[in-house]
Amino acid sequence: MGFETSDDAAVYRVSDETAIISTVDFITPPVDDPAWFGRIGAANSLSDVYAMGGKPITALNLVMFPVRKLGTDMLREILKGGHEKVVEAGASLAGGHSVDDEEPKYGLAVTGVVSPRRILTNRNAQPGDALILTKPIGTGVLFNACRARRLPWRDLEELLPQVAALNAAALDVALRYNVHACTDVTGFGLLGHTLEMARGSGVGVDLTFSALPIYPHALDMYARGETTGSNTANRQLVEKDLELRLKLNDVQREILFDPQTSGGLLLAVPAEEADRLAEELRSAGVEAARVVGTVSPPSSSTVMVRIQ
Amino acid sequence: MGFETSDDAAVYRVSDETAIISTVDFITPPVDDPAWFGRIGAANSLSDVYAMGGKPITALNLVMFPVRKLGTDMLREILKGGHEKVVEAGASLAGGHSVDDEEPKYGLAVTGVVSPRRILTNRNAQPGDALILTKPIGTGVLFNACRARRLPWRDLEELLPQVAALNAAALDVALRYNVHACTDVTGFGLLGHTLEMARGSGVGVDLTFSALPIYPHALDMYARGETTGSNTANRQLVEKDLELRLKLNDVQREILFDPQTSGGLLLAVPAEEADRLAEELRSAGVEAARVVGTVSPPSSSTVMVRIQ
Repeated sequence: MGFETSDDAAVYRVSDETAIISTVDFITPPVDDPAWFGRIGAANSLSDVYAMGGKPITALNLVMFPVRKLGTDMLREILKGGHEKVVEAGASLAGGHSVDDEEPKYGLAVTGVVSPRRILTNRNAQPGDALILTKPIGTGVLFNACRARRLPWRDLEELLPQVAALNAAALDVALRYNVHACTDVTGFGLLGHTLEMARGSGVGVDLTFSALPIYPHALDMYARGETTGSNTANRQLVEKDLELRLKLNDVQREILFDPQTSGGLLLAVPAEEADRLAEELRSAGVEAARVVGTVSPPSSSTVMVRIQ
Repeated sequence: MGFETSDDAAVYRVSDETAIISTVDFITPPVDDPAWFGRIGAANSLSDVYAMGGKPITALNLVMFPVRKLGTDMLREILKGGHEKVVEAGASLAGGHSVDDEEPKYGLAVTGVVSPRRILTNRNAQPGDALILTKPIGTGVLFNACRARRLPWRDLEELLPQVAALNAAALDVALRYNVHACTDVTGFGLLGHTLEMARGSGVGVDLTFSALPIYPHALDMYARGETTGSNTANRQLVEKDLELRLKLNDVQREILFDPQTSGGLLLAVPAEEADRLAEELRSAGVEAARVVGTVSPPSSSTVMVRIQ
């Protein structure tokens, strides 16, 4: 037995065939609707296992909730939404832990299994690979804009099935290809997680802005002055390793720093397999899947993400 | 592969030799001292794995903390205290998840391993067994009294090494005996968890009040009018299945409902093994270990805990 670790997941090998992935994640409500809060919170937690190539087997609820203020009906809806996603993932929900709290928070501690030979990391992207992104970006500004009543709920609501979609289908398809590296795009935004993969792999990355899948209304919300509390920090995280070969306006730039909740997978595969994989992903219902960039040798001592 | 579930832990069999235990738990600060908060929070979380007969292998921090209000120094002390206990448990701490929050909360998502044939539950106590408790009770009222400045910090502080002690040593010794049932004594108090074992096993339990290990000052604090926010609920949980053959005064009664944080193990073993086990526990440093009761056939249709 042995183990290796990443930032928010532990992997432990129990035999030549099986390694165990343990992850934990929880979020504050991205939307007021409790069932969607539950679905998105659960999908977001389950994603950590998919990003490592694993299959979730058990999940435990993590609940912080002001029962006296918001009542048990709302709590029940959150848990029901989360349970839906755990069932959809084929995992077993086995209780959990809850405490009274001022602001609701919800997520899962997820345990998954993976073959030790097939653990995916973000550290093995290779020059010559292409990058595929499986979900649009822009959830951060959309959630904020809806909360501030600048975006009507119905406009956000119709996007939520895609936001809460599990990365299970995308991983299933991807595992039939030679995936060199994989990560899920979450709080640090597309560029933050892309840079993490570039650094971890010792490569450069060229992203094609026009190829990026972006949620409807997201650019529009940035254009109207909406943003999120994470954009500035996410920009600072990457700016010294970022080169814009394409002239982007402020709005286009911000979407690159937009923090994602339950974001898609970013996959590095040999370039010759990329178009076929993207197409098969779309056929399998992962509609947003697009080839969004390529992996290059590091151009200098600095790892760099170039936008072109 | 298969799984079974309990209240706050998931067990998943990955082979004939190995089952995986996943648990999650977190608490609000029992004491102001951040390092002790970390140690107690971690020990409390790790205990869920020991209670099932398992060995912790990986742990993830769960942190809710108002960084701007309380500062990173305090957070670092909490995490350092928790890390100490994870290392002591022989497990690997692999990151975790943290969010900004009004009130600090800390705990671990713990993954452990156990042989599928040796999983301990609270559902197999047998008439003729004796019950052993491995730690004193009374943490609930002590924490509250100290917070209310009715108990000097130094009086509580000298008890904290025992409070934060891992149940690892107790389990190690116990596994050399025929343990029929095991649970850890936590938020529902000694009687709540004893009743749970009695119900789960379909047996009655007779506890000997005078044999119970109780922390210094705990009865004294109840005598001075201190209590906890859980005593009433814990009493209501058990009162219709409780028979007091011994006349207890109010103070003695309340200690039975006192909620425990990082409490001891309650072990059911064949009566003829009990004294030897209790003695071996004490020799191994589990000083409070005492035979505290016996398991009887259910006297009527009602599962009952009798205090005598």
